Amino acid sequence: MCELLAMSAKLPTDISFSFTGFVERSGRTGPHKDGFGICFYEGKGVRLFKDHLPGCESPVASFLQGYPIKSTAVISHIRQANVGQISLENTHPFQREMCGRIWTFAHNGQMKIEDIPEPRHYRPVGQTDSEKLFCWLLGELRDSCNNQGRMRDHIDTLEKHCNRINQYGVSNIMMSDGDSIFVYCSTKLSWITRRAPFGKAHLTDADLTIDFAEVTTEDDVVTVIATQPLTDDETWHQMRPGESRIFEFGDCVQTRYGPEIIHHSHS
Amino acid sequence: MCELLAMSAKLPTDISFSFTGFVERSGRTGPHKDGFGICFYEGKGVRLFKDHLPGCESPVASFLQGYPIKSTAVISHIRQANVGQISLENTHPFQREMCGRIWTFAHNGQMKIEDIPEPRHYRPVGQTDSEKLFCWLLGELRDSCNNQGRMRDHIDTLEKHCNRINQYGVSNIMMSDGDSIFVYCSTKLSWITRRAPFGKAHLTDADLTIDFAEVTTEDDVVTVIATQPLTDDETWHQMRPGESRIFEFGDCVQTRYGPEIIHHSHS
Repeated sequence: MCELLAMSAKLPTDISFSFTGFVERSGRTGPHKDGFGICFYEGKGVRLFKDHLPGCESPVASFLQGYPIKSTAVISHIRQANVGQISLENTHPFQREMCGRIWTFAHNGQMKIEDIPEPRHYRPVGQTDSEKLFCWLLGELRDSCNNQGRMRDHIDTLEKHCNRINQYGVSNIMMSDGDSIFVYCSTKLSWITRRAPFGKAHLTDADLTIDFAEVTTEDDVVTVIATQPLTDDETWHQMRPGESRIFEFGDCVQTRYGPEIIHHSHS
Repeated sequence: MCELLAMSAKLPTDISFSFTGFVERSGRTGPHKDGFGICFYEGKGVRLFKDHLPGCESPVASFLQGYPIKSTAVISHIRQANVGQISLENTHPFQREMCGRIWTFAHNGQMKIEDIPEPRHYRPVGQTDSEKLFCWLLGELRDSCNNQGRMRDHIDTLEKHCNRINQYGVSNIMMSDGDSIFVYCSTKLSWITRRAPFGKAHLTDADLTIDFAEVTTEDDVVTVIATQPLTDDETWHQMRPGESRIFEFGDCVQTRYGPEIIHHSHS
């Protein structure tokens, strides 16, 4: 299994603090040592850093901890391989272009690869069930939206397919088109939104404390979503199996759990 | 205009020496200060590093100069913007997946964006003529190969389209599917193949000399292709306008110039 991390922010924000705790789990405090990846959206542009080495040993990961890239949407993944060898092409997040946007996908799950329908439009480069799932999911979305629009316009389709896939095994999903971050909880995902007045937080996986008040403005709103809470002195919201959420520019804008849909409005 | 750099190698090789000279041209010895990008293939996997900052100032570029990533196929680009603002999404190289492979494209040219036909299958994320050209070219290739095969199987199509596009303006092209590197010379491209016995070389853009004999084995074969020669004490081959070449694992395997096609064989 693997672990997932995402950030949605109102203003460009660096994820160095959360990422520092997260990569500890890639070989030091956790067994997810078979590679890591992190994707930063900057406008419609994307930077994707990957390594097949454990995050805690990777020169790329240590460079990133010291180089605070500011972004409004980030998705990251640390891998504990089950399907597919340890290699760069099997390292999440995966990306494809649709509707003139780069879509990013990271996955924590386990299912039979033959249970995933054959993808249209997109083909996997590596051997993982996760990449095949992404290719299929994005192909279905592309067909249903006629290669038009943004993720937020097609959440119903996305959610329907995630529910279907969830019947085949564990499948926690993070996906973004740069504006929206969609998360689907199959078994385990937690999130926290930080806004003014900001306080302090201490990492679970490293002895590091940050005072967010010192590094933010009153306007900042930042949500972090992760497989497991990254701090030990804050209250994280635990998602329910089958629950999905959409975050945009720091805030949760929609929650769905079974037939129940809540549209959140933020002033 | 921009500058291009590529490497094709028999055995995984780092490009640190060439890249060190090349990025000097991104703001120090040359005017190509509007971003840089470099893509390394490792098997079917890819690492793509980009920055909208001048290469000579970019923390990502300095990290890469000190972190020798070994690869058999590399494409890099430094940008001097004409069409499209200075931003990450307008920074080359561009990538898309076709046939279960990641295809990479970098371009040095100038043409009217409206002269480029509308792409099928792929859509540009940014505003450059180059990305539109890539999307169109790859879409045409995809149609003609029915989304099957590798670049080497479809060189005729690729070349025909490059010749067509070349009529609209300057269009020097580098493209790879991970195995083959295709280069098309519209105005200016040079290349050099280094093999045993290896000698020394001195960069044109920085006072740096390398003794390749110290960092290679007898089996190494490495070709570097660049807009302008990167060393001042070696003989580079200058390509003719309208000439294309395909390099695979260090060697040139095919040259085409007008109706003349030469298939090179290497033992």
